[in-house]
Amino acid sequence: MMHSILIIGQSNMAGRGDMCDVPMVENDKLFVLRNGRWRPMYRPVNPDRGTAGVCLAESFADLYSKDHPGVDVGIIPCADGGTGIDQWCVGGLLFDHACYMAELASRTSTIAAVLWHQGEADCTEVRYPVYEEKLKVVLDAFREKLGLQDVPFIIGELGSFIENNVWMPYLKNHPYINKALNNVAESDKMIGIASSEGLRDKGDDLHFCSESLLELGERYYREFVKLEDKNKVFTEKATPDNAIRTNMELL
Amino acid sequence: MMHSILIIGQSNMAGRGDMCDVPMVENDKLFVLRNGRWRPMYRPVNPDRGTAGVCLAESFADLYSKDHPGVDVGIIPCADGGTGIDQWCVGGLLFDHACYMAELASRTSTIAAVLWHQGEADCTEVRYPVYEEKLKVVLDAFREKLGLQDVPFIIGELGSFIENNVWMPYLKNHPYINKALNNVAESDKMIGIASSEGLRDKGDDLHFCSESLLELGERYYREFVKLEDKNKVFTEKATPDNAIRTNMELL
Repeated sequence: MMHSILIIGQSNMAGRGDMCDVPMVENDKLFVLRNGRWRPMYRPVNPDRGTAGVCLAESFADLYSKDHPGVDVGIIPCADGGTGIDQWCVGGLLFDHACYMAELASRTSTIAAVLWHQGEADCTEVRYPVYEEKLKVVLDAFREKLGLQDVPFIIGELGSFIENNVWMPYLKNHPYINKALNNVAESDKMIGIASSEGLRDKGDDLHFCSESLLELGERYYREFVKLEDKNKVFTEKATPDNAIRTNMELL
Repeated sequence: MMHSILIIGQSNMAGRGDMCDVPMVENDKLFVLRNGRWRPMYRPVNPDRGTAGVCLAESFADLYSKDHPGVDVGIIPCADGGTGIDQWCVGGLLFDHACYMAELASRTSTIAAVLWHQGEADCTEVRYPVYEEKLKVVLDAFREKLGLQDVPFIIGELGSFIENNVWMPYLKNHPYINKALNNVAESDKMIGIASSEGLRDKGDDLHFCSESLLELGERYYREFVKLEDKNKVFTEKATPDNAIRTNMELL
């Protein structure tokens, strides 16, 4: 029985934590989707760039696993660094890619949560005023397209450290994005929001450090627990593909 | 204008060459598909495992680029280590994943070649007798599903060094698979086959070393040239997603 977690958004969801900073969690119940199939989790979980590293979904999945004995937990990595909300529009490449991956994953698992972290790219003067409205449209579209009406969506605040970023001065507008994120969460009983309070960057005034990413993943999980339907019945999915796995597949 | 190359098969197509052995080609016309969009090429090109490394598509794409000035070249990485021909069956996870990626890539590019390297997993006594027939079905299905009737498919021989593999003694049957691969190529004017003669392993009696992978990619390209329609007109595709790329996307 596999429960899966779809992760979407930009670089801080993909994860840019230095992989030397924190060891991988030891949990053989955790998996990542590769080519539509499950592999034992390894880093980087979300290989969208050569710079991909530690990901907040690692600690989220680990806590989920510990609370759900007997269940395997699969991460569906679809986050893409630097992308703005317009690039996540319905019918666009990123939206359709995530839907395709979710569809493949759903053949052998049931999606139990969707995690979103995004908004840095929308801090500009032109973009932040329309962010809340656009985000709602995107999240609703994922829910409708993938039939996830009863599945918790957890979103997360931007790190306040980005206000020090000298390369992208528009990041000083991040409080408007964080307000929009909180408004979206408040307006929908199946959306939770994880606070970024006190979390630190990796030294670039842009990306959470590894320790903060794992802490943020735990905060996402605590918000998930508030929305989770503990009585939900997950149906066993056929996994025909696993049946013909060969011993060569480790290589 | 983007021409793209779909790569499918098992670990020797994904590429397991040590990335320290050979430098990355310097060519800013080369790209890899990530989340349905194009990124400047980086290693590993085909991140199917933590062990992914140098890939034969690197040298193939580089030669293609030099012969096609003014064109960007994108690699669609869908190879998956250790997979047998049954796992590439029509409607299976790997087949559908590759079709989804090809569909996304085709919104902003035109597929110019398909590269296949696979068969090690089918060297067992039970599997090799039916390999030729199954391979034909899979390649024909890709061609039909993706509308690639006029596109060269290039396949490649297994390395003869696998006969020394003590962990998987059934690999001694590789000549039967190589015969099947050659038969498939001979039976179809749009399928070419690259020889593995003289190529070396990386020391594991299973995977081509980096230098041999790049040589094999060049051999694939020389076979491609024999089948290429030099008068083919590629239509320019709209790239709406590029229009809203932000400077943050490098991060």
